[in-house]
Parts: sequence; C-alpha cells; structure tokens
Amino acid sequence: MNPDIVKERQNATFNVEKLTNILDGSTEKTRRRREIESMVLNDPDFQEQDPNFLSRSERYDQAVRKSAQMILKLREFGISDPDEIYYYKNCVHPDRPEPLDLHLGMFLPTLLNQATPEQMDRFFTPAWNLQIIGTYAQTEMGHGTHLRGLETTATFDPATQEFVLNSPTISSIKWWPGGLGKTSNHAIVLAQLHTQGNCHGLHAFIVPIRDMDTHVPLPGIVVGDIGPKFGFSEVDNGFLKLENVRIPLDNMLMKYAKVEPDGTYVKPPSAKLTYGTMVFIRSMIVGQSALALAKSCTIAIRYSAVRHQSELKPGEPEPQILNFQTQQHKLFPVLATAYAFTFVGQYMKQTYNRISGDIHAGDYSGLPELHALSAGLKAFTTWAANGAIEVCRMSCGGHGYSRSSALPDIYVEFTPTCTYEGENTVMMLQTARYLLKSYSQARGGQQLQGSVSYLSRLQPQPVSAGVPPLNIQDLASLVQVYQLRAANLVELAATSIQQELQLRRSQEDAWNSSAIDLVRASDAHCHYVVVKLFADKLRQVEDPAVTSVLSTLALLYSLHGIASNSGDFLKAGLLSVPQALQVSAHIKELLIQLRPNAVALVDAFDLNDKRLNSVLGRYDGNVYEHLFEWARHSPLNASEVHESFHKYLKPLRSKL
Amino acid sequence: MNPDIVKERQNATFNVEKLTNILDGSTEKTRRRREIESMVLNDPDFQEQDPNFLSRSERYDQAVRKSAQMILKLREFGISDPDEIYYYKNCVHPDRPEPLDLHLGMFLPTLLNQATPEQMDRFFTPAWNLQIIGTYAQTEMGHGTHLRGLETTATFDPATQEFVLNSPTISSIKWWPGGLGKTSNHAIVLAQLHTQGNCHGLHAFIVPIRDMDTHVPLPGIVVGDIGPKFGFSEVDNGFLKLENVRIPLDNMLMKYAKVEPDGTYVKPPSAKLTYGTMVFIRSMIVGQSALALAKSCTIAIRYSAVRHQSELKPGEPEPQILNFQTQQHKLFPVLATAYAFTFVGQYMKQTYNRISGDIHAGDYSGLPELHALSAGLKAFTTWAANGAIEVCRMSCGGHGYSRSSALPDIYVEFTPTCTYEGENTVMMLQTARYLLKSYSQARGGQQLQGSVSYLSRLQPQPVSAGVPPLNIQDLASLVQVYQLRAANLVELAATSIQQELQLRRSQEDAWNSSAIDLVRASDAHCHYVVVKLFADKLRQVEDPAVTSVLSTLALLYSLHGIASNSGDFLKAGLLSVPQALQVSAHIKELLIQLRPNAVALVDAFDLNDKRLNSVLGRYDGNVYEHLFEWARHSPLNASEVHESFHKYLKPLRSKL
Repeated sequence: MNPDIVKERQNATFNVEKLTNILDGSTEKTRRRREIESMVLNDPDFQEQDPNFLSRSERYDQAVRKSAQMILKLREFGISDPDEIYYYKNCVHPDRPEPLDLHLGMFLPTLLNQATPEQMDRFFTPAWNLQIIGTYAQTEMGHGTHLRGLETTATFDPATQEFVLNSPTISSIKWWPGGLGKTSNHAIVLAQLHTQGNCHGLHAFIVPIRDMDTHVPLPGIVVGDIGPKFGFSEVDNGFLKLENVRIPLDNMLMKYAKVEPDGTYVKPPSAKLTYGTMVFIRSMIVGQSALALAKSCTIAIRYSAVRHQSELKPGEPEPQILNFQTQQHKLFPVLATAYAFTFVGQYMKQTYNRISGDIHAGDYSGLPELHALSAGLKAFTTWAANGAIEVCRMSCGGHGYSRSSALPDIYVEFTPTCTYEGENTVMMLQTARYLLKSYSQARGGQQLQGSVSYLSRLQPQPVSAGVPPLNIQDLASLVQVYQLRAANLVELAATSIQQELQLRRSQEDAWNSSAIDLVRASDAHCHYVVVKLFADKLRQVEDPAVTSVLSTLALLYSLHGIASNSGDFLKAGLLSVPQALQVSAHIKELLIQLRPNAVALVDAFDLNDKRLNSVLGRYDGNVYEHLFEWARHSPLNASEVHESFHKYLKPLRSKL
Repeated sequence: MNPDIVKERQNATFNVEKLTNILDGSTEKTRRRREIESMVLNDPDFQEQDPNFLSRSERYDQAVRKSAQMILKLREFGISDPDEIYYYKNCVHPDRPEPLDLHLGMFLPTLLNQATPEQMDRFFTPAWNLQIIGTYAQTEMGHGTHLRGLETTATFDPATQEFVLNSPTISSIKWWPGGLGKTSNHAIVLAQLHTQGNCHGLHAFIVPIRDMDTHVPLPGIVVGDIGPKFGFSEVDNGFLKLENVRIPLDNMLMKYAKVEPDGTYVKPPSAKLTYGTMVFIRSMIVGQSALALAKSCTIAIRYSAVRHQSELKPGEPEPQILNFQTQQHKLFPVLATAYAFTFVGQYMKQTYNRISGDIHAGDYSGLPELHALSAGLKAFTTWAANGAIEVCRMSCGGHGYSRSSALPDIYVEFTPTCTYEGENTVMMLQTARYLLKSYSQARGGQQLQGSVSYLSRLQPQPVSAGVPPLNIQDLASLVQVYQLRAANLVELAATSIQQELQLRRSQEDAWNSSAIDLVRASDAHCHYVVVKLFADKLRQVEDPAVTSVLSTLALLYSLHGIASNSGDFLKAGLLSVPQALQVSAHIKELLIQLRPNAVALVDAFDLNDKRLNSVLGRYDGNVYEHLFEWARHSPLNASEVHESFHKYLKPLRSKL
C-alpha cells in the first residue's frame, strides 16, 4: 500500500462504510452487492484478456463468450431480481455495453409489454432460452429522436395475410441498434403501418432476420455491422435493409393496437402506454451519469494523492498534486457532482416506481411531470458528466491519455448518453415546453404541484423585484436562489416568445427564435432540482460526521454552480457584487475543508479495482509499477523488432 | 451534388476564393498548397487502407511504410522549405501523428541547435539518411512539465571517458516519447549530469538504443511500446529503462555546455537558449487549434445543411437542422472561433519569426513577453478547441459517434495538446506570473510595452470606477471591455495574493491560495488578445464583402465570450444588466446574419475531402450513400456469420 494513500485514509473524519451504506441504500444492500461482485470477479469463467490489447473482432468474440456464460450462471444461481441481474451484468462486462444488451434490455421487455399471450408462447420462451436472439430496431440512418420521421414501411397484404416490410430509401435503413449486426436472429422492427390504403403510424413487428440454424441472413434481409465507433467496441451496432420481407399477420405486436384479417386497423386504448420504457431508461441514465463521475473522480483523486510533482516551496519535497488549489478546484466540484447525481438517481428511481404504480392503478396524472423531469435531468446530468469525465482525465496529466488509466474508455462508453434515448437539446426543449405551460397556468392563477410549484409563487411583477437575503453558507437559502433563478429564466423565455409573437411571427417561429432561452430555462430548472434534492437527502442522513462532510459537498456543489453561472444570478438581482466575491472566497474555504476527506469520499463509492480496471485509480495507490507491468503486455511488444523495420526502414537505406 | 448544399453555396454573399487566399496568406500560397496537396493525394504510393479498419500493429505498419515513402519523395521532388515539408507530411498522414514525427521534428532540429561540428558529421548525416532514426526522450513516467523533477542520471567516469546512464527508479523510466518504442535506434536522452561529485542539471546525450543492423535492443537497454492510448494509434510512444548504459564523452551534445576529459564542467553561455524550441512549438499549437476547429465545423456545418430532421411547423417538410436556433448557437460560435484562432496562429508565427531574428541579433528583450503569450495562448486555444470539437461531434447526432464522421479521431489526436508541451494549467500560471510582474511594474510607474501595456493605464483606483460607454455593435468598444475585464481580474488576483500575505502566509502559499484567480486572470488576458488580434486582422482585409462577413464573425466571437462570462463583466461594472440582455438579443441577430454564409465560410477553409476523411463532411453533401458504403467495409462484415455464433451461441441452446 502506498504510504501517501494510507495517510489520506487515516485523516478522514467520517466512517466510510456508513457512507457506502447510504449510497447503496442500506447495509444489507451493500452486503448483497459485494456478494454478487465477488461471485463474478472470482469466477474463472469470466476471466478476460484486457480488451485494450485485442482487435475489435476479438473484443466482440470475448464479449459474446462472457454473455453466454452469464446467461447460464444467472439461471444456475437463480438470480432474477432486475437490480441484481443488472449489477451482475455490470460486473461481468465491467460497465461496458455488450452484444446481448438489447436482447435483455429491450427485446424481452418489449415482448412482455406488447405481445399477446400467443406471441409470448411463440417468441418469449425461445428468446428466454436464447434460441431467438433479438434486438430492437427503431433508429434509422436518417432519423433518431424524431420518431415521426421514420420511413420503414409495413404494408398489410390481406391476400396472403402478411405484412410486407420495406426500406424505401437509403436513409430508411435501420442503423445503430445494438446486437443487430451479427448477434441477433430476430428484430422488433418499428415501421409505419399501412393497411387499407391508410398509414397508421409506427408499430412494432417481429421480423426473423437470420436462419435459426445456420445464422445466415434470410432472403430480402441485408444486415451487417455499421463499423467502428468512438467506443462500444464490443457491440455489433448494425444496419438492416428490408427488401419486400414478408412476415405473418400475427407477427405484429398486438396487445394494444391490432390489424384484423380483413385489414381493419384497431387503435390502442391509450397512446401514453408507450411513454413508460422511455421514461424509465432516461431515469436510469441519471444514475449512469453518477456512476461515470464516481469512477472518474475515484481515479483522478487517488492518483492525485500519490502523484508528487513540481514544487510549492523551493528546496522542499515535491507536494502531492492534490495540494494544489487548481487541482482541488478541478476535482472537488466533480466529486460533489458525483454525490449530487447519485442522490438524484435514487430519487428518480423511487419516483419512477411510485408513478408506475399510479399508472397501473389507472392514474396518469403524474406522467407529464415525470416525463419533463426525466428528459431534462437526463440532458442536464449527462452533459455535466460528459465534460467532467474529461476534466478528470486531463487532471491526470499524460497518463490520463493512456488506455491503462481507464478514463478514455469511461468517456467513450458514456458520451453516447448525450445523444441516445433523446438528443439532449431536444430533451431540454421538451422540458421547456412543460415549464412554459406550467408558467402560463401559474399566470392564470392555477396552483401548481411538484417540481414546478415555485412558478405559482411568482408575483405579477418580475421576480427580480424581491431579492431574498442570501446566506451563502446556508443550503436552504441557496436552494431558494436557484429556484428564483429558474423562475427568472422561465420568465425571460416566456417574454422572448411574447416579443416574437408581437412581431407577427408564427407560434413555431417564435418558439425556434427563443430556443436558446428555453434551453437555458430548462437547464436552470434542472440545476435547481438537483440542489434541492441534495439538500433534501441531507435531512435523511443520521450520522453527524457523514452529514457534516455531505453538507460541505452540497455547499460546494451549490456555490460552484453559482460561480459558474454568476451572470444569471447577478442579472436577476439575486446576488450582489460583494456577495459574488464572497462566493468565490468561500469556495476556496470549502476546498480546504474537503481536502482531508477527498480520498475517503471516493473510497465510499466502493468501486472494486477489477471493475474500475484503472492503473491510476488502484486502491493501493501503487501506480507506477503497474503502469510498467501493463505496458509490457502491449501487443506491439510481442516481438522485440517489428516487421516494418525489415519491410520498410532497412531497405530504405540503400535508396537514400 | 446534394441540392441543399448547392443552394447554400449560391446564397453566399462573398467570394470564397478571396477568403481562402487570406487564410493561406496569399494567392500564390493557396496555389502552392493545392499543388502539394494534389502531389500527395494523387500519388498511388500514398494510398492507404482506412485505419479505422486495421489493428494497431497494422496501423503502425502502414504509417511506417508511408513515412519511408515520404522521405524518398521529399528528396525526389526537392521539397525543403519547412512549411512545405510540414504541409506535405500532413497530407501523407492526414493530420495524424506518425512514427517519424520526433525524428524529423525533434531529433534533427536538436542536433542542428546543440551538436558540435564533429557531432553533426557523426550523427546528423546518418540521421538525414535514416541510418540513424532518433527520438527525443525527455518525459519520464513520474515527471513531464516539471523538468527539474526528472530523475535519469548521466554520471561521468573519467577512467573510461564515458557517461554512465541510469534509470534509478521506476518513475524515472522514460515514458511517452514518440517513435521510441519500436522505430528509433537512437535517442537524445535528457538526464541529470553528474561529474566530479556535483549535479549540473539536465543535459542532452545521444544514446544508441538498438543495433544498427539487427534493430535488437542493445545491452542495458529495456525499450518498448507503452501500450494503446486514446488516440495516436500510429505512433509507438515508448518507454526506455537505462541500466548502466555507457556512452562516450563526446555523445553529450556540447555546442554550449561542456564536460572536459578530466570531468570539469563548463557552463553554457546563456540559459535562455533552450527557450526557443519550446516557444516555437507552443506557437505552432495555436495554429493546430485553429485547424482542428476548422475541420470539426466544416464537418458539422455541411452535415447540418443536408440533414433534415424534426419539424418546425406541422405538415411542412422537415427543415435543414442548420435552421434551428440551437444548432446555430452551437456551431456558429465555433466557426467564429476557428477564424479567430487562425488569425492568432498567423500572428504567433510572425511574432515568433520577428523575435527569433532579434534573438539571433543578440536582443533578448522580446523573449519574456513571447514566452508568456505562447504559454497562455497555447492553453487558451487548446482548451477552447478541445471542448468545441466535442460540441461539433455531438451536434451531428448519433453519426458523429461513428468513426466514419472523423470527429472522434479529430478529438483524440487533438486533445493531448492540452497536456503536452506544458500542461495547460501550469501554462496559465506561467502567464499569470508575467501578468502579475507587469502589474506590479505598472503600479511602480513603469510604462509597459506589448500585450500588457493596458496595465500601465490602470488608475490607482479600481478599474471598475470608470465604466466606458459600451457599444455592443462596435468591435473597438468590445476590445476595450475585454481589456478592462483582464485588468480587473489581474487586479483581483493581485489583491488575493496581498490578502494572503497579510495573513502571514509565505509567498508560495499565497500564490497557491490564489491560483484559481491567477488562472482566471490569464484566461481573461488571452481572451482579450484574441479579440484584439481578430479586430486588427479585419483592418488588413481589403475586399468589402469579405470584411463584412468577417466582421460579423468577430462580433459573434466577442459577444459570445461576453455572454459566456457575463458574471465577470457585470462584477467589474463593465456591463449593465440591460446591456447584458442586449448582448443576448444581438447574438441571435448575428446567428441570422451568418446563416446564409455558413457553408461558404467552411468551404473557405478549403479542406480537401481526402484530408478531411469524413463521410458527414463531404464537399458534395452525399452523406447517406457513403455512410452505407463505408459500413459495408467494416471488418466484422468480412464473413456473414461471425465465428462466435458457432463457438458460443449455438452450443448454449442445449444447455438452457
């Protein structure tokens, strides 16, 4: 164990295990998480070669091998709780996406939600036994987030009782679905349903794409891998071109919408039923943002504790770089954000479960708010995490750029969350639509509920009229100014739209001409929600030492956000110039307060070394020996002399 | 040609070729650049397989092949002007680093600068003929930017007239030098020189590391590749461990410092002589920031012009996404920054050449300013570009994540500039040291010259006392507020240090406790310099239509910077709240003004399709056909059925 990191742990002012339990949810959950972790990490069947040293085809091959093992073991050990399956999977493929992700996470659940009992027999059981391997083919080359633009068609032919599926244009080729390229033999294809001469919009169809026995693509199916990406090297994201592919009538998922044998279309009872999965996945992504940050700052903070560099005072030994104010100012706000987002993730999960319950009981009233909140927080947390991962990587100097640090992989596996499941700017604008509607209701005298209730408390005069007595050391006071900032920016966006309308622009043009303001309003709303949820969480923590250090993090998170957006607060009259200077000064104080607990705070995330897979982030701090060890396994070192010397460099001598 | 992009080009209000000439420097330079480009891009010897489809060893192999060809051709065509060699190289390896980079860019130049005539004969001539392939081994596993911390030793042994080189610790192993792992047979090793019992600091030694004939590592040399990185896949960044390696006395580079046969050390005449290369490379990096941005926004803007998505008005065709205000707000400030940094890059090159001339004439007076400016601008421009590349990538939706977009590669090849040649935070603090010294001189009544002259004009009272009448549509007025903001932040940093000293902290602790403020001050100073240089450049442009569009870009760059840092301007009393709102409104106006010229402005960068190598950024706008074409070449599509199906998935069925 590196002596620096030992000392760091001795200096902590709180009990790390207690904080870990809070992050897991309970002592029992910590115990069970570790149990699953050790089942996987000590299982020789899951040993792997470092993917960094493999070709893409080898990475894919290794991932398929492990996924197949995983399916067997989950049955063998009787692991069936969704949270436990999810965690088991994340240990098998340490936080890497894998070829069966869409089979497990989209194909099976979609069948569960939308298949008839007959279809369950015909598809779910074989899919459960991996006879059928499926994916979910929605996104096309030309359209992703904007679903109405999807072009694939499924036309009912009553003569044969079949649907005929086609990709009518190049841009309509299905593009991106994970597991589509090589792994799946079936796909749930989203296509525009045509019957009796009318188009009824997107519906889901089960399409066999490869022969069950030989795995060769079926006639009319052009399928393959879409090529290398920034990350996701284990996954065969694929393309699918459909050329007059015929499937039987009863391959349309018909639990809700239906097509009758004569071609009559029967509408689903509610359009809202398709909301659920999307909202669920967006809520989950908030937790993924927290995890990506927890991993990144675990690596960067541990390495900064063992790395000595430069000099503060001439002649003295080189200090730990964690003692530089600039390094603390890079990393501690990220640490605070990791905690903030973890608590927001917990809240989103609880809220999703609560509102799901309501929906099953027929009460849809909570859905619009959940939809707006999950869209905005997905965008807010992924954008923040995306930038912060790179701050962590670059804070590790050159070694952050080595694959051995794991930071490049954390980034490339995480960054698609800004785009998939709803592109972030579009998500922010969806949340803005909800905020503007709520604002207008509040103006009309309605009493609002939930996260937007503050809009009801707006006076007829601008919010800037009443500046509250801000106390920058009091979290409740900070929650209040974040709320007022959000209200102010919602109001500015509404004013912008009004002004555009007065210039005789259409509603749509007025909206587009105010889009920058609308995104800012959503961002401010989400920022307020995060600060508020962090403050709420603190009240639930019982241990005084843990409460104390979490309070410091919450203050840092809040004040850092004010400093980074000080223009907003100053413009709204929520902050005076002297207060702004106090905020900067107090942030420095908080960095000093956090310094002794920095390593303990990342230890509390309890990220196993094998899962972290980072030479720089090792628990024992023994970085340099292992960096050398790792490098020696580089494939380029397999031979002392690379063949290119004999092929090109040596022959060149005679020519020069 | 895609009709949308044809229409875009028809709408431009200026002559693209004229702007290209301004960017190149002259009509003749444009002509010669294109001549070199076509020499390389049409040369069958430089044809390559798409590196995205190769393993790392194959990528390295291909790069060595092309580099060897390049050396031959440069001689064959008699290309010897450094700018032309640099451009030729950038076409051979389209903006990718390659294994001979350090041989050409560091090994040969270091010999030129520091070798004695005898050493020139012994090393330069064979190196010129690629008998000797060399690298520059400075950075170690434990130290990069902080050179005094380097641990490698070179101890003179008078008995044998040799230096004995050692890597005394694991952290002293040379780490990162390009071309060190596999390619080089010699290295210039930077080591602490010990003679007659004294250490005389870092000196450069020529160390043979591989057998000239067999290329096998020599005794005492442990050398290899440091393993895969985020990018730089063509380069064998290497490690080098020295175990009692003996080299003759005259392998120390002795043009300036010397060791005599009895071990007497002779100091170099000036320590400043080592500054030159570092300053040169940092100045060059400013131009690289501009290039990375030019490429990224060429791709993103062209793709945004041909991509139709979503709907602005129900029932109407899907609009080009470049018509969305949010998309313009992402991309046009990046476009403006690309232009700004191009002009800053031109200025840095001219300034470097001017001051180099002075130095050769014995006048060192310009060096401190150039040093401070190149350090700060290197950090400022690389940080800005680093973030902006990712904004461009994510603005392309999912396809930006595909390697076919080229954006992932632009990012991973560019991002090390934030770390190498001086870590950015350290660079900012070096500039801050110069600013603080200048501030203190100004306070002492000295009249300052150059970029910091504005500090002389500070009154004894705080700068905030005199608010100028800001005109947000007048570039000169904006240059002035940027200047005043910089002055204000330099003053705040100075005040912070004073306050810390009054608390009886040491100078060093006061400095570290003010580091956040110091970095901000440097950042503001650099921002001012960029805005000023952009405004200066405008005055040199003669064509009215070009001047007009560049003015719009300069205004957007300046106002976007004010909006993003509005807290600073408000706090310093340089901007009123109503003015801040006007800034936001005027930015929207500028986006509308730029819209018709957006494609023409990226066309003016004149980046050849082959060099850009992006399916999304193609000049003809025919994106989707080529995306499909590209994907079909993915190695995973070499066989219809991947072997993993037979190995793992099919056998699994019988077990479930």
